[in-house]
Amino acid sequence: MLGGKGANLAEMTRIKLPVPPFFTVTTEACNAYQPTGKFPEGQWDQMMEALKAIEKASGKKFGDATNPLLVSCRSGAKFSMPGMMDTVLNIGLNDETAKGMVALTKNERFVYDSYRRLIQMFGSVVLGLPDEAFEDVLDEMKKEKGAKVDTDLDAAALKELVEKFKAVTKAHKKEFPQDVLEQLRLATEAVFKSWNGKRAVDYRRATNIPDDLGTAVNIVTMVFGNMGNDSGTGVAFTRNPATGERKLYGDYLLNAQGEDVVAGIRNTEKIENLGKDLKPAYDQFLTICDTLEKHYKNMQDMEFTIERGRLWMLQTRDGKRTAAAAIKIAYDMVNEGLITKEEAVLRITTDNVDSMLHPQFDQEDKKVAKKEGRFYASGVNASPGSAVGQVYFDADLTEKMSKEEKQDTIMVRPFTKPDDVHGMLAAKGILTSEGGATSHAAVVARQFGVPCVVGASAIKIDLDKRQMVVDGKVVKEGEWISVDGTTGEVFLGKIKSFSPSLEEQKELLTILNWADEICARPDVRAKLGVTGPKRGLQVWANADYPKDARRARSYGAVGIGLCRTEHMFFEPERLPIVQRMILAPTSEERTAALNELLPSQRSDFEGLFRAMVDNEKDKNGYPVIIRLIDPPLHEFLPAAEELQDKIITQRIANLAGYTLGKGDTKEIAAAEKMLHAVESLHESNPMMGLRGVRLSIAMPEIVEMQVRAIFEAAANVALEGYKPKPEVMIPLTGHVNELKWIQPRLERIAKAVMEEKKVNFSYKFGTMIEIPRAAVTANEIAGLAEFFSFGTNDLTQMTFGYSRDDAERNFLITYVEQGILPKNPFQTLDRDGVGRLMRLAVEDGRKARPELEVGICGEHGGDPNSIEFCHMIGNNYVSCSPFRVPVARLAAAHAALKFSSGAENTDK
Amino acid sequence: MLGGKGANLAEMTRIKLPVPPFFTVTTEACNAYQPTGKFPEGQWDQMMEALKAIEKASGKKFGDATNPLLVSCRSGAKFSMPGMMDTVLNIGLNDETAKGMVALTKNERFVYDSYRRLIQMFGSVVLGLPDEAFEDVLDEMKKEKGAKVDTDLDAAALKELVEKFKAVTKAHKKEFPQDVLEQLRLATEAVFKSWNGKRAVDYRRATNIPDDLGTAVNIVTMVFGNMGNDSGTGVAFTRNPATGERKLYGDYLLNAQGEDVVAGIRNTEKIENLGKDLKPAYDQFLTICDTLEKHYKNMQDMEFTIERGRLWMLQTRDGKRTAAAAIKIAYDMVNEGLITKEEAVLRITTDNVDSMLHPQFDQEDKKVAKKEGRFYASGVNASPGSAVGQVYFDADLTEKMSKEEKQDTIMVRPFTKPDDVHGMLAAKGILTSEGGATSHAAVVARQFGVPCVVGASAIKIDLDKRQMVVDGKVVKEGEWISVDGTTGEVFLGKIKSFSPSLEEQKELLTILNWADEICARPDVRAKLGVTGPKRGLQVWANADYPKDARRARSYGAVGIGLCRTEHMFFEPERLPIVQRMILAPTSEERTAALNELLPSQRSDFEGLFRAMVDNEKDKNGYPVIIRLIDPPLHEFLPAAEELQDKIITQRIANLAGYTLGKGDTKEIAAAEKMLHAVESLHESNPMMGLRGVRLSIAMPEIVEMQVRAIFEAAANVALEGYKPKPEVMIPLTGHVNELKWIQPRLERIAKAVMEEKKVNFSYKFGTMIEIPRAAVTANEIAGLAEFFSFGTNDLTQMTFGYSRDDAERNFLITYVEQGILPKNPFQTLDRDGVGRLMRLAVEDGRKARPELEVGICGEHGGDPNSIEFCHMIGNNYVSCSPFRVPVARLAAAHAALKFSSGAENTDK
Repeated sequence: MLGGKGANLAEMTRIKLPVPPFFTVTTEACNAYQPTGKFPEGQWDQMMEALKAIEKASGKKFGDATNPLLVSCRSGAKFSMPGMMDTVLNIGLNDETAKGMVALTKNERFVYDSYRRLIQMFGSVVLGLPDEAFEDVLDEMKKEKGAKVDTDLDAAALKELVEKFKAVTKAHKKEFPQDVLEQLRLATEAVFKSWNGKRAVDYRRATNIPDDLGTAVNIVTMVFGNMGNDSGTGVAFTRNPATGERKLYGDYLLNAQGEDVVAGIRNTEKIENLGKDLKPAYDQFLTICDTLEKHYKNMQDMEFTIERGRLWMLQTRDGKRTAAAAIKIAYDMVNEGLITKEEAVLRITTDNVDSMLHPQFDQEDKKVAKKEGRFYASGVNASPGSAVGQVYFDADLTEKMSKEEKQDTIMVRPFTKPDDVHGMLAAKGILTSEGGATSHAAVVARQFGVPCVVGASAIKIDLDKRQMVVDGKVVKEGEWISVDGTTGEVFLGKIKSFSPSLEEQKELLTILNWADEICARPDVRAKLGVTGPKRGLQVWANADYPKDARRARSYGAVGIGLCRTEHMFFEPERLPIVQRMILAPTSEERTAALNELLPSQRSDFEGLFRAMVDNEKDKNGYPVIIRLIDPPLHEFLPAAEELQDKIITQRIANLAGYTLGKGDTKEIAAAEKMLHAVESLHESNPMMGLRGVRLSIAMPEIVEMQVRAIFEAAANVALEGYKPKPEVMIPLTGHVNELKWIQPRLERIAKAVMEEKKVNFSYKFGTMIEIPRAAVTANEIAGLAEFFSFGTNDLTQMTFGYSRDDAERNFLITYVEQGILPKNPFQTLDRDGVGRLMRLAVEDGRKARPELEVGICGEHGGDPNSIEFCHMIGNNYVSCSPFRVPVARLAAAHAALKFSSGAENTDK
Repeated sequence: MLGGKGANLAEMTRIKLPVPPFFTVTTEACNAYQPTGKFPEGQWDQMMEALKAIEKASGKKFGDATNPLLVSCRSGAKFSMPGMMDTVLNIGLNDETAKGMVALTKNERFVYDSYRRLIQMFGSVVLGLPDEAFEDVLDEMKKEKGAKVDTDLDAAALKELVEKFKAVTKAHKKEFPQDVLEQLRLATEAVFKSWNGKRAVDYRRATNIPDDLGTAVNIVTMVFGNMGNDSGTGVAFTRNPATGERKLYGDYLLNAQGEDVVAGIRNTEKIENLGKDLKPAYDQFLTICDTLEKHYKNMQDMEFTIERGRLWMLQTRDGKRTAAAAIKIAYDMVNEGLITKEEAVLRITTDNVDSMLHPQFDQEDKKVAKKEGRFYASGVNASPGSAVGQVYFDADLTEKMSKEEKQDTIMVRPFTKPDDVHGMLAAKGILTSEGGATSHAAVVARQFGVPCVVGASAIKIDLDKRQMVVDGKVVKEGEWISVDGTTGEVFLGKIKSFSPSLEEQKELLTILNWADEICARPDVRAKLGVTGPKRGLQVWANADYPKDARRARSYGAVGIGLCRTEHMFFEPERLPIVQRMILAPTSEERTAALNELLPSQRSDFEGLFRAMVDNEKDKNGYPVIIRLIDPPLHEFLPAAEELQDKIITQRIANLAGYTLGKGDTKEIAAAEKMLHAVESLHESNPMMGLRGVRLSIAMPEIVEMQVRAIFEAAANVALEGYKPKPEVMIPLTGHVNELKWIQPRLERIAKAVMEEKKVNFSYKFGTMIEIPRAAVTANEIAGLAEFFSFGTNDLTQMTFGYSRDDAERNFLITYVEQGILPKNPFQTLDRDGVGRLMRLAVEDGRKARPELEVGICGEHGGDPNSIEFCHMIGNNYVSCSPFRVPVARLAAAHAALKFSSGAENTDK
């Protein structure tokens, strides 16, 4: 109700910190104002009453000619919306009170400087006049007086400027009110109105802030840092917001007002030096900083003013910080005993973790760039990561320059369309001047992991002139810019970036271990009412090769949820053997080809088992789920078009009457044979065709070889002292009878290998749940399957009836843009549809087999929202790409904390 | 427990009809015998006791040399399995008793004829000797004695034959037992064993008779119809089993045994003539027929023997009958007050109705063929209907002769494989010598409605000689045969067939009306516990054109459940306009093309509304559900291959160095333009691509035109005095937001048209439920949709993840053959998977909108098993092809009766 600023001012007042007397008009008043354009009944009376209290506390009187009270009128919503809403300072000045202020302060320049600022602010903010109208007059005056900067103007010049500013308002048929109450009333109304200003609405859309929150209005007694060298003003963070270092961090200026610090006209002093200038006030400030941090248990971002040696706190709030700082601060505060491990885990976001794994801009170099005036614009941080490149204004050129000229490119467009995707994929980064977090550009960029800033509305793009402009700063096609998709900032020129290594990030690693501990607690699912393990999710990884498995382990994965065996088939030296196997006219020849493939499969599996251990000494294995061959066979053969092109050469040669060489003829014959195979395997909808377990039933030799390779590999490493945990996963099951057909004959091979090798280890057979029918008949399927792994990519495809590639190109992006789908269901699990089937499958599956192991592989395994849902339905693990493992570990802990505390327990 | 034969003999005995003394060994004894190969404890003692009772009742003694009792030992399972199990007659004869019989009957020829028959039967059935061994000896004897047929042999010859037969058994190291008890014991055991004989097992597989029923064994006192001209034997039906006519129908022979009637060696007499020959017995028989029909309330099939003027009933059972007879008998029996309308409806099967709608063989001509010895073989009736054609022994030749030579062909194979489908589709009928009701041939044939007989195992096919043989009867490739898929019979040469017209089948129409009445009762769903209408299913039809709608009405459909509007787009004169619309570069040009299509759509819709009325006088409309455009646009364009072929001509011309004519150049340019459009619309999985509502959101102009056409049509006929009930169906909805986007803008058009035309009528907007997600989120979707229509074809595709065309070719038929799938889910609804989603959707949908109208369109709408399930989950209607409407009406009534009587209430 009080908004962020108002609440914090009130809180500071409550704990007896020095805050200038103030009162707050609530967000409720703002909301009541919006439909009618009128203050709700009683508001003005209450404001007048509160004003009297301020007058009493400050010993000054609003509008009094001898001892006038000046106030600021500041917006303050629940969530910070920096620069999006209006503020008016120095309210209470008019021709009469100005004179009184002069008499009181003996500082005519200060008073008329304040007065002219009031008229300009009031004129632009409240009366809606163009700011340039005032700036033009100011520039003229400076020229006339030979002044370089505003502060070169003396009292007389400023007094003259006040009159000229009044004339500006009149020229626009508006009047600056001399009635101070009218000033207050109109300023308050202007703040209310700014809640629905275009800038504010756009910002809320982009950041998902609800429209019905409204803003509060804070009427705060003015205090002045510009009343001489015993005065000053500054901003400070209790810790370094870039690095997290535990050291006061800030700037101040003596004899200056707040905006001077921000505007950067004068060089600010480092906050440490304040101790030399104004020691008592500085000491008091240090104490206050400490008090505030302990009170809020968080790093604080503060504004203060010292008026004639007396310290006033004007604002405090939780400070914004970089990902690195967020992690270090959370870690330090636990060690300082300020917060618990749970709070630390909740304090950092999955985006924080994610950005620590993407290339990032060097913070120092960024600061240098800002100092050099190379900050260019900011927009919505649509897809994280840093990108440096040359600007191109269309997709074709971006692609050409990227591919042919090997340039690093940034594609810049007002907005993007499906036609632009080839350029977006070729670019290092994407920048648009329009659109929000769900615009086409944003959705596509996130999809493909390209850093992206959208809706940088300050940028004017001129596609004819092949250039863009912000405040006169022109960037021409081919020039370099730097785009920070993590923060939404855009800079001119190049900024240094680096790819952080997780191993070196002690604080992050520690917090992730805390996250794991939280998940492992036996009670984390107590409030959910789901069957299955009471502990929360484990995080496993998808890894096809031993090197992926090692990375996954180093990132904290405690299992492999998906090893795609067919990837091994695509290796250049293996593919010809695979093709020979597919084309084999007899079962013997097929088996012969498969026997050639067996050793390489086995050796890859051995590598996986060796990598997936708790430590090299104990060699206790983590589960390794190996999926049997899934794709349709035609994927291993060349495309029909390629082959036809070869064959057509023959037809043309015949017609054109020339003879082909022997080599060509032979190649064409081979192509014709291959084309025949390709055509016989052609399917009109291969996604729903002969693949997965269907293929294994039609041609069991392949999976028989694979199971032999898996168990020979496990047996071999077991003989080396490892304790492997192989789990064989059968893909695309839709009917329990498919398992009944294939699983026993595979289990026989498993047992045979263990007998041959005279070794024993535990293993599981299970299935993907990726066909809707499998989810619906999970009770039957769990009769055979010892584990379920949700293949949410395919399950989403079938449940929605979307062919993923076709859909994203043809309508899915449009659906997300138009809000027909709230999110891309291939990125974030669709809880209502796909999720309902999953929940059904877990419940029914565990009824048939209470110890059923349930997990998820596929891209949703790395998406925090989807991970939360997996926790909610009682999954044992999520499996994601090794790079997403840290994010997933944090997300799993967030879910565990959210539900075990009983804070929220809803499907949404 | 007593089996069919035993139970009926017992029942006849109970109601005091003349049955020879007998006893029955139960099926339980048979089941106890199977695992051990031994009679269960006490069985033999009980048999001996029962034998004594028979001896007492008959006044004869088993094995007695002066007054011997002879018995038959007959199998008799719960369900009739004609010819599949064994029977032994004349048990009790040995060298001693034969002499006693001669003394008693003074008929030496009769006694030794019986004795030699016993030894032959016993030899082949019980001792397992080859029947030929006996036949050879018999033939030799006939040659020796100059006898043409068996009956030419005199007593002496037969006596000699007895000795020779004994020698045959000895030559095979077996012995015919002179101990009559041993005869009885071994014969009983042989019947038990025959339950698990190959023939019997195959038959049970094909007819879904459970293996664990077992057979009973009936030990029946022999009576003899061959003891002179005061004796005889016959079979009779209480009504004509071919036509249903209410008139005794059968044959008899004086001085003959049962097998003589069946074997057709002597010409039988019509049953009516028995009144002349043996009036008292005939009169008694007439009374018994009447008694039995009234007792069993069904047409009876009886066997009787008259021994020296005394009538004995040897069997009665419900008579098998043709479809036509089944219908007439059910109808007549209601009128005679014998059964209720409900019983009549239950008495006829959906197969009966179905076969009355397929071409059928003329019964009289079939009888003639049988008399002429043209009956060739019989097998499993796999796909109903009659087919006459020339035999070809492979698929390629069948296709070639059908297509190129325009012949009517019958494809004959030992069995079929997926490679054979092109031949099967080209043939008029299919015949195989192997396989059962779920073999590849059977599944494919039913799928495509080709009459088919499978597993006619008597036929020996010789693919090298291009011929087939049964008992020496050779059919060479190209010769004519007739295949009756309804009965499983195969005949040589041509048999006349006819296509029955429903309109002329008064009895069937009446029974279907009774079926409708049963469905319409308000209580038919009382026991199911489902929400929705308490009345059972209505039957609607799928109809795209007015002529289909009129047929549907004449077949009793009371609504159109699916009108596919895009079929209208494929009409040759409209397709170019559709293509122009698709290729239109601007929205104006697109709208212009659509405006050209509107009048034809509107006029088709007018025709539908006019056809779908209760009667021409009242013009009350039935609901007409019109589905908006569904297929992807590329379906309206030529195939890429076609276009590429054209374009390649140019490339070849260039390379070969000749110039193309102007016409060619122009055509190639058009082809290139078209190819571009085709390629841009290409999808890797079109089934899951841009179609249905997705297409409507991308390109709303098409459906806007369609809705305008629908409402203009409805308004026009309303102005003519009709009361149309249009229902607009939106296809492929997966998310409620799709409806939220499209439905309001279509409803605005509907309202606008009604205002323009100043007319009002009721209408609905609804959706297909064919995407699994739609079923899972039905509660949300029912918020907008006023009706659901399950598109079970697509829903099955998505739920199973089967692309229908690919799947049936690649693995689905194999799955059904191997029993991985119990049935083809595209023919019979998969209750566990797809069905569970449907049930969920109905329940959730009705929670959101209690009056929700729910139906099913797609092929399952005509499948009785699926129709039953639709009844069980509370659907309002099923919609099927007009030709299936009569079948569906009966199936709906069967479901209603099954569940309202509470007989069964299960999902299975």
